[in-house]
Amino acid sequence: MKEIKIRRSVRSFSDRDVDDSLIEQLLRAGMNAPSAVNQQPWEYLVIRNDADKKYIASMGPISGSAAVAPVDILMLSRTVDLQLPELVNLDMSMAAENIMLEAVYLGLGSVFLTVVPYPERMKYIADRFKLPETVAPFGVIALGYPSWDRLNHEVDRFESERIHWGAY
Amino acid sequence: MKEIKIRRSVRSFSDRDVDDSLIEQLLRAGMNAPSAVNQQPWEYLVIRNDADKKYIASMGPISGSAAVAPVDILMLSRTVDLQLPELVNLDMSMAAENIMLEAVYLGLGSVFLTVVPYPERMKYIADRFKLPETVAPFGVIALGYPSWDRLNHEVDRFESERIHWGAY
Repeated sequence: MKEIKIRRSVRSFSDRDVDDSLIEQLLRAGMNAPSAVNQQPWEYLVIRNDADKKYIASMGPISGSAAVAPVDILMLSRTVDLQLPELVNLDMSMAAENIMLEAVYLGLGSVFLTVVPYPERMKYIADRFKLPETVAPFGVIALGYPSWDRLNHEVDRFESERIHWGAY
Repeated sequence: MKEIKIRRSVRSFSDRDVDDSLIEQLLRAGMNAPSAVNQQPWEYLVIRNDADKKYIASMGPISGSAAVAPVDILMLSRTVDLQLPELVNLDMSMAAENIMLEAVYLGLGSVFLTVVPYPERMKYIADRFKLPETVAPFGVIALGYPSWDRLNHEVDRFESERIHWGAY
């Protein structure tokens, strides 16, 4: 599928804004991810405020994209009413990939910035956005229109040695 | 994107076999997932043997699809030479979602069967396939042609209350 082939981590964005309707389409894709026993642990906080984006950018050594992207999507996971809490981070990761692929489909670029599993980053983010204990920050997807339309481009990472047929 | 909209967990398959070339295409999609510092922790074991599939199906209460699918893909993650081992399960989950979406694109159906984070399942699988300590079983994707072509179909799980604009 084209979107899987050409998706790259995009860290340089044009000034063009991203409509709320597109953000909704991205998050609709996230909500369509599989989750353990369909527990759908996700919520989303859409951040456009410059001060908030700069704050996020300072959470770690390679989080700078959060400040330069027009939109940061803070992915949150529910901490209550979960049948299989031990699988929430898998659910959230699959939702993140859906959002990043849908972004490619819409001509956008994105990069995933890690929050989980680092307690100090989780607290740093939860404090800023006054998150209740019923949700935890999972990660941030910084996104926008790429500054150059070839930033998403095909790279073939296929290595046949990674496939074992029938036995290891 | 159509594939994200119509992907469902498919647990009923036709007898039609899945060519190795398609398996390669699926795993190529998996290898194109993002990973932390591009560490690409994945390897894949492709299983078609009935006895092995039945063994996998017995690993948990809802793993039965492994026995009825024509192919099980056992996803393995490297345990050595990792810069950020704490992020491997996120990497692997994103690769799993790529594979499941590519399956939809190819007219296939799939379901993800959980191995991580359950130590007893990890041992159960590692024992059977004599995995070296340099790799760990992550999960299984059972896949094949759906028994009915509408098994992948659109379900709208969008809930606007899950989106917070600017502040929680």
